[in-house]
Amino acid sequence: MSTQSVSAELAKFIASYQWSEVPEQVRHESKRTLLNFFSTALSACFDPTIEKAAKVYGQFSCGPQATLIGRGQRMDILNAAAINTMGANVFDFDDTHFPTIIHPTSPVAPPLLAWSETQKVSGQDFLLCLILGMEAECRIGNAVSPYHYARGWHITSTCGVFGAAMALGRLLGLTEQQLVWALGHASAQASGLVETLGTMSKSISMGNAARNGIVSALLAQQNFDGPAKPLEGVRGFLNVTADHADAQSIVTGLGTRWEVLNNAYKPYPCGVVLNPVLEACLRLSTDAELLQHGLDKIERIELTGHSLLRQRTDRPQIKTGRESQVSAQHAVAVALKRGRAGLAEFSDEAVADATLKPLGAKVCFVDDDSYSVDSAKVVVKLTGAKPIEVMVEVARGAVARPLSDRDIEDKVRTLCNYGKSSVDPEPLIKAVWGLEESADVGQLMKLALGVAVHT
Amino acid sequence: MSTQSVSAELAKFIASYQWSEVPEQVRHESKRTLLNFFSTALSACFDPTIEKAAKVYGQFSCGPQATLIGRGQRMDILNAAAINTMGANVFDFDDTHFPTIIHPTSPVAPPLLAWSETQKVSGQDFLLCLILGMEAECRIGNAVSPYHYARGWHITSTCGVFGAAMALGRLLGLTEQQLVWALGHASAQASGLVETLGTMSKSISMGNAARNGIVSALLAQQNFDGPAKPLEGVRGFLNVTADHADAQSIVTGLGTRWEVLNNAYKPYPCGVVLNPVLEACLRLSTDAELLQHGLDKIERIELTGHSLLRQRTDRPQIKTGRESQVSAQHAVAVALKRGRAGLAEFSDEAVADATLKPLGAKVCFVDDDSYSVDSAKVVVKLTGAKPIEVMVEVARGAVARPLSDRDIEDKVRTLCNYGKSSVDPEPLIKAVWGLEESADVGQLMKLALGVAVHT
Repeated sequence: MSTQSVSAELAKFIASYQWSEVPEQVRHESKRTLLNFFSTALSACFDPTIEKAAKVYGQFSCGPQATLIGRGQRMDILNAAAINTMGANVFDFDDTHFPTIIHPTSPVAPPLLAWSETQKVSGQDFLLCLILGMEAECRIGNAVSPYHYARGWHITSTCGVFGAAMALGRLLGLTEQQLVWALGHASAQASGLVETLGTMSKSISMGNAARNGIVSALLAQQNFDGPAKPLEGVRGFLNVTADHADAQSIVTGLGTRWEVLNNAYKPYPCGVVLNPVLEACLRLSTDAELLQHGLDKIERIELTGHSLLRQRTDRPQIKTGRESQVSAQHAVAVALKRGRAGLAEFSDEAVADATLKPLGAKVCFVDDDSYSVDSAKVVVKLTGAKPIEVMVEVARGAVARPLSDRDIEDKVRTLCNYGKSSVDPEPLIKAVWGLEESADVGQLMKLALGVAVHT
Repeated sequence: MSTQSVSAELAKFIASYQWSEVPEQVRHESKRTLLNFFSTALSACFDPTIEKAAKVYGQFSCGPQATLIGRGQRMDILNAAAINTMGANVFDFDDTHFPTIIHPTSPVAPPLLAWSETQKVSGQDFLLCLILGMEAECRIGNAVSPYHYARGWHITSTCGVFGAAMALGRLLGLTEQQLVWALGHASAQASGLVETLGTMSKSISMGNAARNGIVSALLAQQNFDGPAKPLEGVRGFLNVTADHADAQSIVTGLGTRWEVLNNAYKPYPCGVVLNPVLEACLRLSTDAELLQHGLDKIERIELTGHSLLRQRTDRPQIKTGRESQVSAQHAVAVALKRGRAGLAEFSDEAVADATLKPLGAKVCFVDDDSYSVDSAKVVVKLTGAKPIEVMVEVARGAVARPLSDRDIEDKVRTLCNYGKSSVDPEPLIKAVWGLEESADVGQLMKLALGVAVHT
């Protein structure tokens, strides 16, 4: 075990790791996650949360330095990064790092993208910094999990600021000492509460993670100093925000074990425990036998799964699209009835569809902790006919059954269409896959700009 | 006891309390604390921390909307408020709310001052909002004390953002609902760690408290929504950041008990436990008997006081001015030798004065918990002469023995001189005392502008 401090050791890795050392699988995953990031950012570019934030933040933009994805609008790098992070995460449809439930890419990619519009950054440098930033973010998240989130910290926000600071810090070529200071500046700005989930307020700490990560790196570049042990210090981030943090885990296996490989992409805009249920219900929606009997004949819909399924999603009475994202009753009804499970199916409009409620009321839960959270069985009991059963062993979107590259491309197409920007997804998709060969990542953002439709 | 939620009840008070109801003593104290704020802000306007921050933040200022105190420079309201807050607090020479050790004015006054430069704000409205913001800030601090600071939260930063949000929220005329949202937005941005103390990093969370308080209020004004119980919710600010928070204390006696009256102003730029020791040593520096014998005859300097005095200030080996602010050895030596205890005596230069170390080495502590932290006895033991003893029962700067109005005026004069701005303190002092009659607080900031001497 190293005798160096954890913060210093992490900083050393961030400062010195080379693109040539990055395994091919990690390189490819970084492009997949970036593509997934664009899909969710494009889905929300005109969402009310983003509209209001852009109105307020836009008053304080010092110039049109960087693109607001899909909005046909530019702001300074701090505000552009903040709003792009907010947008990518507003529906919680972005990536999920399973050990921590961090959404790693949203706070880390936007600072790098914004910076790439102010000067030429190569695709390899960009991807390296994205990978390193996410690695720092997720490892710090691992070190404080599960105590940190359980206490009420919105872990993507609180750990995201470190990822953003390290990503941009590396891009700026900060020294090890400066990177330790940047970690300190990030620690001084780490915030975000679980209490805000389900409200617009959540997006503020997300945007701040990106914004303040940039500020942390820029201050460190000026030798604005900070504590020597911002992570593991007695009153440092780990000890203050988690009861039993494991500091050493932050640096164990750096460069050999990669957290980006524990990252997964959601097929549906819902809590991940609903993945197997939705997959089963989508299959049932085209089941010949069920179609023959009709949904009216359903007496009861039995969901068998890990008890977390019931604990997190037994919500028969919901009023908003946001709530519907964690309601099994709504998810089952809308998937069976519409045969789809996209953002439109988890919107305020979908929740207002009175025909769904009676079907959802037929849902009941059977707890069985021998199921993993990625598996579920759905049994539809019919009047005057034998039950129809669908078993999903490992749901799409699990780390063990990830979305294919093509699935992620389709997610970009679908969500781009949903978000109603004028962005053409095809050149963007192509550019992300080709990013390793790009000499100028700033060109990518021109493809994601879109046209302003609101003023 | 009210059945209303704590957050809602606080918001109701903030929204509805009237200037006509504010007791005269509270009104007067608000002017005293504002004057003290200007003294410390003027002392640090060209400090390296502020220079570096202004360089980075200035790159992102959208326009010269508001004054940077003493710097002859203007930035947008967010950045001006942040930097003025940083400056007022950088030496920890600003006010101290004794129950919590919050420095209440630094994060709350700058947002109001900046806003007052964008539109006409009357002195009465300004002072009312300052009082209400500080009240919210200190009461939230009371509710989480002492667990919050003990855990490692820099309480002025974490609670300051609420004060700033409530102060500006009231000035903007937000509704009760909007103020609850603003509390939520503040809760999502509350950050700052004790680990950063003694480094430039500390100033970041201070600046953010002011900046993000403004953002919280402006977002709420756009009906950007937030949680219903941001303070007392299960995963709200109180429960997440303190183990045994007392939510109800936030609203008990609102409008009758005033936290600004528990606020005190430091006579010396040191940890407050050093106040009685410094007062004793300053008296000794002019003691006829000691002058006759000379400091060379001192064998031993015995400090008798509460054990906190020793615990917080027994630091014989120090290297920086910042460390000297909490070193009894340095404080005793410099006060005896120079007969002064201002910022110059607690600077890097003073610490480098080799003649002070031998004198400081003669300091020893006698713990006696029958002493309050405001009292101390200093006994100087001399070679071939009887000891000289000075007892300080209640030190200047304690809540029970506050600085006089004239003392605070002199602090403005002294620190203004120290900070080397070109600001003339006399018209500023006069304007603060006359603020109740002012129709335009923005005029005040013209008196505090100064002239740029660095570029």
